[in-house]
Parts: sequence; structure tokens; C-alpha cells
Amino acid sequence: AAHGARKMEDYGRFLALLASALLVGFVSVVLSFVWVFQYRGGLSWDGSSREFNWHPILIVMGFVFIQGIAIIVYRLPWTWKCSKLLMKFIHAGLNTIAMILAIVAIVSAFDFHNAKSIPNMYSLHSWIGLTAVIFYCLQLFFGVTVFLLPFAPVRLRAALMPIHVYSGLTIFGTVIATSLMGITEKIMFVLENPSYSESPPEAILVNCLGLLLVIFGALILWMASRPHWKRPPEENTKILRPIGATPEGTEAESTMTNSSSADNSDLRSNTEAARKQNIKFDEAGQRTTM
Amino acid sequence: AAHGARKMEDYGRFLALLASALLVGFVSVVLSFVWVFQYRGGLSWDGSSREFNWHPILIVMGFVFIQGIAIIVYRLPWTWKCSKLLMKFIHAGLNTIAMILAIVAIVSAFDFHNAKSIPNMYSLHSWIGLTAVIFYCLQLFFGVTVFLLPFAPVRLRAALMPIHVYSGLTIFGTVIATSLMGITEKIMFVLENPSYSESPPEAILVNCLGLLLVIFGALILWMASRPHWKRPPEENTKILRPIGATPEGTEAESTMTNSSSADNSDLRSNTEAARKQNIKFDEAGQRTTM
Repeated sequence: AAHGARKMEDYGRFLALLASALLVGFVSVVLSFVWVFQYRGGLSWDGSSREFNWHPILIVMGFVFIQGIAIIVYRLPWTWKCSKLLMKFIHAGLNTIAMILAIVAIVSAFDFHNAKSIPNMYSLHSWIGLTAVIFYCLQLFFGVTVFLLPFAPVRLRAALMPIHVYSGLTIFGTVIATSLMGITEKIMFVLENPSYSESPPEAILVNCLGLLLVIFGALILWMASRPHWKRPPEENTKILRPIGATPEGTEAESTMTNSSSADNSDLRSNTEAARKQNIKFDEAGQRTTM
Repeated sequence: AAHGARKMEDYGRFLALLASALLVGFVSVVLSFVWVFQYRGGLSWDGSSREFNWHPILIVMGFVFIQGIAIIVYRLPWTWKCSKLLMKFIHAGLNTIAMILAIVAIVSAFDFHNAKSIPNMYSLHSWIGLTAVIFYCLQLFFGVTVFLLPFAPVRLRAALMPIHVYSGLTIFGTVIATSLMGITEKIMFVLENPSYSESPPEAILVNCLGLLLVIFGALILWMASRPHWKRPPEENTKILRPIGATPEGTEAESTMTNSSSADNSDLRSNTEAARKQNIKFDEAGQRTTM
């Protein structure tokens, strides 16, 4: 009973963090709209600065908020009864939406630059931002190829999963850092009289937006890196297994034929050796997220 | 023998990454000096922009490079024969040096602003940067109080360690993001004719600096988050232990009196129950870094 109570408490803590992340993310999106419509003349697609305005809106909504949700989607407890395959589709789908929005956001910036004869790709923001988008596309491509499609062997999936998780979180952090540079750049360009240093309302607004993006990133990072909030492994892989079988326990069952599970079934004996191996194995931390 | 070869290969990989991180970090520091001395008139402490020039140099050297080394110092294999206590002193010492350099860096910016009657704390860079420094000081204070001084009980240390690790890495990432904003801000202020958008050599230089800072951060993050590169637990805590005893295995021996080890000694029997608990416990991922 004490164990159950602790579990409920932990569940409540997860929900509280999720609610905070959703709220902070939502307010960030709202602030980006307020910035564009209240201070920057709204949206259009005509080469004017109003075309550029799509850039912050799509980045905050797609590349930060939707990417953040995509990262933690496996951790939502009510999805644990859904199949792992369905959740992979949702994870890949959300990331695809985020990628498309990020690309449209980049196009709007290039289009605006070209219409105004402003050079492209000169700023640190653009260098790191484009690098992040390229890595994001690669991550999505390899993610789908290795983890969603049914071709990659279990060992390869297990070996690449820690890299996938690390790249995902690092790209996400880099995207937020790039957003902060973008805010800095844009607000310095547009505020002249009063200037940024005189802290007019627009300056306070975008500073709050930047601060919220950092808080959103920190919340997602915390939720994504708590091992006890991980989606539990599927029933048929939950049992003890000797080292080398399927390190990333949740990887075996979804898009693979069950040949590997069948291969394992005769290794499932609860022998002393298997148990020892398993301990060693868990010590190596393969079951954790990062 | 195969196991030994794999270990050596893994050790080589760690050294290669460490060498890369040191090189990237060192080149970043050099580039910050080149920026200041080649393009920004060098250093002084007289309220001029040459006083401000301490800011990027101390941040890159102290708050990025030294902090990065402090983060991975436990993972250097040749330190594993040193006592954990000594390593804690080195970890805390490097972080203290980084903190002092960061504070001097902030003072140089404020001093410069005040001398030129430029308002303080108006930019997103300053908001997030000051927040990061405050959190860094708190992290150092609680780190010393809980983990270095011999007062906190083992359970508290174990419970707070994941938070310490998470905060440390998140603050480190935020510091790098803040540096990127700082570079963006400063280069936009100082480049007028030619402007930033015309990509003069100074613009390329600072963009490269920013890119290197991101690469440095990514390397440190990778090294710090591989569970198999963790410092191994001390001999007397290496054995199996029932749940609740000392989750963060390496925390028991260094600044605590050995009362806790003594308490545990009669629980060390390799019973089935203890072993099961231990597995459960390892599954919860408590031995991992993040």
C-alpha cells in the first residue's frame, strides 16, 4: 500500500510538471503572437517584414513547443496501454510536423532577406539554426529508418538508442539557444526609438518570451531524463534476460517480427548466471534515457 | 580477453572525446583573446570598452571551459585511484574558480555600463545570464553543503544527486546559450561599417567562436551522460545492497563517518530478496547520471 501511495504521488508529480510545461509552452506561443500582431504588424506572405513574422511564430509553435511534446510523448502514462508502434508513429509524426514548420520558418526568413536584399546566413543565429535544422532532419530520417521501419536488427536499435536520445535532447537545447539569439537579433534591429536599452514594453515582452522558452526547455529536459517516468517495457520483454539479448527492452516488440523474442524465450531461465549478467547489465545503465 | 579489449577500446574512445573537448575549449579561449586583442582594443580596467572586454574572455575561459572540465572531472579514469573526497574538492574548487571568474565578468559589464551611462539588465542576455549565475551559486552552495561536508545523511545525498546532476547540466547549457546571445549582442553593437551582415573577418571570427562553444557543450554533455564512463563505486560499496541503503553507491564513503557502511554490513548477505531488490533498484536507474 505504501508502494502504491508513492506511485500515485509520483504520478501526481509528473502531471504537475506536464501541466506546467504545457502552460509555459502555450504562453510562449501566445507571446509570440502578441509580439507579431501587437508590435510587428501581423502576418502576410509578400516579402515584407510581415512575411518574416512567420519565422518567430512557426519556430516557437513548431520547433520548440511541438518538438518538446514529441520528446516526452512516450512518457505520458495514459499512452502506456497503446502499442509501442502507435506511439512511435505519434513521436515521428509530431517531429515531422515540427520539421515542416521549421523549414517554412526558414523559408520566410530567406524570402524576406531576398526581397529586401539583405544577405543570408551571415549571423551566428543563422549558422547554428541551419545546423540544428539539418541535424534535426538527419535525426528524423535515421529515427524512422532504424526504430520505426521493421528492418534494423534489435542489436543495432539498442546500440543507437542512447545516441538517438542524446542527439534529440542536444538538438532541442540548441534550438532553444538559437531562438534566444533570434529574439536578441530581431529586437535589436527593430527597436530604435526607444531603443532596446530603454526597455519599452516590446523589449520586456520578448525578454519574457525568451525566459519562458528556457523554462519550457528545462521542464521538458527534466521530464525526459527521469528514468522512473519511462514507458515500461512490453510484457514479453519485462522478464530478466541475459546480457546482449535486447538491451533497450522496449525495442524488441513493435516493428520487429517476433523472431527475436522467440530466440530469447529459451534463454529466459532464471539461472544464477543470467541474473548476475542482468545486474551487470543494468549497472551499465542501458535502461536509462541518457 | 575480448572483454578487456572492449574496455580498452572504450577507454580510447573516452580519451579521443576528452582530447577533442580540450582542443575545442582551448581554441574557443584563444578565439576570445584574438577577438579582444585583434579587433576590440585589448584589456584594461578603466570603465572603457576595454574593461568590458574582460567579460567575453572570463566567461569563455571560466564559465564555459572551466565549468565544462569541472563537470567531467569525476570521469577521468586516472583519477579513479584518488579518493572520492579529493575529487569532490577538485570538482568544487574548479566550480568555485568558474564562479569567481563569472562574477568578475559580470562586474566588468556593469562597470562599463555605469561608466558609459548605459542601463543595466535590459537585455534577454542579461536576464538569463544573471539567472544562470544565481542558480550556479546556489548549486555550488548546496553541492558543498550536501555532498562535500560530512553532515547530510546518505539518503538525502542519494535523493538530491539526480537533481544536482540535472541542474548542473542544465545550467551549463544555459550558460552556453547565454554566451551565444552575448556574442550576437556585442557583434551587432560594434560592427557598423562594414556591418555584421557584410560578414567582415571579425563577424566570421565570432561566429566560429559561437559554433565552437556549442560543440564544446555537446562534447561535455555526451561525456557526462554516458553511464559506463562513470567513476566506479568504491570497493566497500561495490557489492549488492538492498534497496534504500545507498542508492548513489559512491556517496557513502567519502565525507561520511563509516557508520552507514557499518550499518549496511549485516545487510550484505547475498539473499534472494536482496538480489531482487537490487535488480529493481538498478532498473529504476539510480546508478545513472541523468
